[in-house]
Amino acid sequence: MAYRSALTSFTAAFVDELAEQGIRQVVISPGSRSTPLAMLIHAHPLLKTWIDVDERSAAFFALGMAKKSNQPVAIVCSSGTATANFYPAVIEAKYGRVPLVVLTADRPHELRGNGSPQTIDQIKMYGDHVKWFQDMPLPEDNEAMWRFARYSARRAVDTAEKVPKGPTHLNFPFREPLVPDFQKTGLWAYGKKATSKNESTFLALEDAAYAQLATEWQSIRRPLIIIGPNRQEGLRASAYELAEHLGAPILADPLSGVRFGSKGKQALLIDSYDALLRNSAFIDKYQADGIIRFGANPVSKSLTKYLKQLDPSSFLIIDEGFDWLDATHPATQILHTDPVVFCRRFSRLVSEQNNAVAGTWREDWQQANSIARDGLERYLSTAPWFEGHIAASLYKHLPPEATLFASNSMPIRDIDTFFLAREDGLDIIANRGANGIDGVVSSALGCSALVHQTAYLLIGDLAFFHDMNGLMMAKNYGLDMIIVVINNNGGGIFSFLPQASEAGEQFEDLFGTPLNYEIEAVANLYGAHYFKAVHREAFDEALKNAQGLKGLRIIEAVTNRQENVLRHNKLWQDIHNGLTAEGEGHED
Amino acid sequence: MAYRSALTSFTAAFVDELAEQGIRQVVISPGSRSTPLAMLIHAHPLLKTWIDVDERSAAFFALGMAKKSNQPVAIVCSSGTATANFYPAVIEAKYGRVPLVVLTADRPHELRGNGSPQTIDQIKMYGDHVKWFQDMPLPEDNEAMWRFARYSARRAVDTAEKVPKGPTHLNFPFREPLVPDFQKTGLWAYGKKATSKNESTFLALEDAAYAQLATEWQSIRRPLIIIGPNRQEGLRASAYELAEHLGAPILADPLSGVRFGSKGKQALLIDSYDALLRNSAFIDKYQADGIIRFGANPVSKSLTKYLKQLDPSSFLIIDEGFDWLDATHPATQILHTDPVVFCRRFSRLVSEQNNAVAGTWREDWQQANSIARDGLERYLSTAPWFEGHIAASLYKHLPPEATLFASNSMPIRDIDTFFLAREDGLDIIANRGANGIDGVVSSALGCSALVHQTAYLLIGDLAFFHDMNGLMMAKNYGLDMIIVVINNNGGGIFSFLPQASEAGEQFEDLFGTPLNYEIEAVANLYGAHYFKAVHREAFDEALKNAQGLKGLRIIEAVTNRQENVLRHNKLWQDIHNGLTAEGEGHED
Repeated sequence: MAYRSALTSFTAAFVDELAEQGIRQVVISPGSRSTPLAMLIHAHPLLKTWIDVDERSAAFFALGMAKKSNQPVAIVCSSGTATANFYPAVIEAKYGRVPLVVLTADRPHELRGNGSPQTIDQIKMYGDHVKWFQDMPLPEDNEAMWRFARYSARRAVDTAEKVPKGPTHLNFPFREPLVPDFQKTGLWAYGKKATSKNESTFLALEDAAYAQLATEWQSIRRPLIIIGPNRQEGLRASAYELAEHLGAPILADPLSGVRFGSKGKQALLIDSYDALLRNSAFIDKYQADGIIRFGANPVSKSLTKYLKQLDPSSFLIIDEGFDWLDATHPATQILHTDPVVFCRRFSRLVSEQNNAVAGTWREDWQQANSIARDGLERYLSTAPWFEGHIAASLYKHLPPEATLFASNSMPIRDIDTFFLAREDGLDIIANRGANGIDGVVSSALGCSALVHQTAYLLIGDLAFFHDMNGLMMAKNYGLDMIIVVINNNGGGIFSFLPQASEAGEQFEDLFGTPLNYEIEAVANLYGAHYFKAVHREAFDEALKNAQGLKGLRIIEAVTNRQENVLRHNKLWQDIHNGLTAEGEGHED
Repeated sequence: MAYRSALTSFTAAFVDELAEQGIRQVVISPGSRSTPLAMLIHAHPLLKTWIDVDERSAAFFALGMAKKSNQPVAIVCSSGTATANFYPAVIEAKYGRVPLVVLTADRPHELRGNGSPQTIDQIKMYGDHVKWFQDMPLPEDNEAMWRFARYSARRAVDTAEKVPKGPTHLNFPFREPLVPDFQKTGLWAYGKKATSKNESTFLALEDAAYAQLATEWQSIRRPLIIIGPNRQEGLRASAYELAEHLGAPILADPLSGVRFGSKGKQALLIDSYDALLRNSAFIDKYQADGIIRFGANPVSKSLTKYLKQLDPSSFLIIDEGFDWLDATHPATQILHTDPVVFCRRFSRLVSEQNNAVAGTWREDWQQANSIARDGLERYLSTAPWFEGHIAASLYKHLPPEATLFASNSMPIRDIDTFFLAREDGLDIIANRGANGIDGVVSSALGCSALVHQTAYLLIGDLAFFHDMNGLMMAKNYGLDMIIVVINNNGGGIFSFLPQASEAGEQFEDLFGTPLNYEIEAVANLYGAHYFKAVHREAFDEALKNAQGLKGLRIIEAVTNRQENVLRHNKLWQDIHNGLTAEGEGHED
């Protein structure tokens, strides 16, 4: 009885403090050893629980909720390999900077390492991929340990939320009996509650650093602002302000939070840089000498190549944490400071020198961008059905402020190409920490669970297959989502890589990997509305019909991998030609 | 060109040495960064490749092949979270002692830790769950490095195979271009091949240790041999020999490799100990004073409880590696030595003292065992349909030497109860390293890939759902397997635990977790033959019909969780009553 009392009070103190610290959503994968956590979390009035049998999907579902809400989410599982199934999402949370609080149940010390069932070494099992790990003590029934339980919850949540955000891991040994005593009174009052939630902290630079930067930037004539994937609130407005002061065009990644919802500031945005920077004449002519980059490395490969060949006098990477996210190695400085604060402070310092910008630098980018946009629209209106039409149709028919989750590999690239800047907002989300094709369905459904309108997912057939189990959450919780599955029967992105021409007979076996499965059978399994489209008009029609329904809707859009490559290449060639013609016209 | 030449020769030397060291099966999950490994492995004349898009399933598929064959199997994946999906199977391989060679592709050093796509920290990412980790150098084109490539392959395979067997991990950084040059001549001749495969090594004890043990065991009157899960060749015959010399009954776990194929030695085997040891009168009366245990901790919970309450004068755990697998803590000695060698040597030393056994000790166990067996058969013939009938029917209708994979949770327990010792062989396999319900479908299919007759899988609906993706391998490779899915719509084992009575309204949400999915829809998705059984005769009929077909066959056996608990309890009560009546009879 003494142990059961301790189990109850200690775990309840921990669970209550999770709620005190702002946790609202908890995803639980069922198990026996995790019973104390699961039951107390389920019983807590402020915590909403989501049950997902597959721990891999569960962790990605939580990741999606945390990404969408920018709030920490907790996940719970039992001991053993269950915990290892969390690993992919934990890693994505680390590199994607998503606040995730991982709670694993474990055997007590006397049952570890001796072959007891479902017992593995869980100490630091996620290695450096969590920001903080703590092996908890066995529950004890006294004020000091209740306080420790609360301290641990507080620290786990706070560390997950501090810059850079990321996952934390607490491992809980429990002895039997495992069922808490719900007869205890004042279940949520054990231990002293924290008086408040910890304040958020940001990294700041000294005044002298700003002064030095301002001096350096006096000589910049061809500035660029690049905004890569990020979920920072307030960055949009402050980045526009900085761009105006600098006279710099903003190359805005689709995951930057800046490309959509521009509300009058659209002239600042360059959205077709991926196409522009495939043109060597353009690149030669438009060599930036000063760059400020926010967020993670952008999706566009041509932008990466452009940056690599540059030799700018100043290339600043602004990082809200302590990372060194410089995949192209051209940065002259990595400034560890809050991006919004940086924009505001640096805007003030450069406001007097923005006439330093060379002639029509920003206008030239905008003009080229217009040519690219026109070329894109022209090509889409005349080209035979290909994957570009799917992204373009989604772009056209998504309601304002819609949430669209983009799978990795081709979908996020097509969104980069076909989702042009616009005045009304769109929330495009993707797992760009590690760019995996795993857990995409669950991550998207996690987002959808926290929005009040239908959410969207654009995904290929391989990634859709990989996390098919994730659909169980849509079925069990009646989530509203339209999933567009681009079915090209295999790994479409490989057709864009050298393997396609060089791997010969091995290509289909090793890279194409057609799975030949019926999307409709998946829809049947999960009780989803199903639509199939094999051409443009059918897709538009299917999307419209799907938008008129509720629940899980799956649109299978059938495409051909080889044709898709040809048409993407033709599009870029057309834009290239348009730019070249324009360039020649200018020189006349 | 120089790098491509180095990439080709260095990687080919490594791949060729994998084959030289006995690797024959390689499971590859497609990706770009792993192209050099994937293409060279696929091209190697001695290596058979299996392509599985889902890395979690892929690793379990390889684990199944390695378990079934007792041979090392390699797995390959690309960089990023793909590698983390291997983690559950890597952990199972560690604790289940399965030789698995894990090959992950990585970015080169200059692209690590800077936000490059699909780049995570893969250095020691499986922590202590692999036996050996090496971060490989970039490929080089010279004799010294070709030798190092071969050395690394040799060491990775050898370490995986040495006692205790387990996983090893090599991480390969590759630069672009990634496609090897197949125009190079003598692709498999780079570097000096190993002259031979390393000899296997076993742990041995000094003569003095045996002499001391023999002396101690002179006073043993009530010896028991317990054989838990293991895949050691030759243990059966030598364990029978030891049992005869000691006059000790063998409590043989269904995964011991000893319970089936007894060929004339059946009298040595106790197979119904799980039922016997639920009887407190039996336990009180039959207190062993000397125990020798081989293999991992047995499946039976009642055996574990029995061992915990014993106070034997000698309890030896024989471990072929250096582990301390004593979950009950009653061992007086853990002997790190080869079990087969131990049996042979110790048999010779105790042969003269086996008259020391107390009276009818072994016969008493056998008699009780017969009562339990009779009770079991009687109950099965009269009881209404429950999950016991499924295991019993499989037991009856499996052909000799059939391979049956048992899922964890209830299936392996039912097999423990209903699969009685028999003369002809059965190969029962389960993932008992960490006892997870993950990866079961894939592990079973991995086994089936290496046998020439239909393999079997007994699994519940939750575990079946968890690794549903694993079925893709059956579809793509036309594997012959009969899967019996016990569909009790949720987690059946929880109904046997205290949570069932104590969790109240929370029970179905947190533990029962009904998924309400149609097994038939899964069969449709994967093109499997489908059968459904809701009573005994229908199940027998379905099994018979399934056995007449080829390819993937799924039998859904519908049961009820609550009834299942009641009937298991009734069975144990019946056996208990039988034993009590017999005991009273004796005392008369």
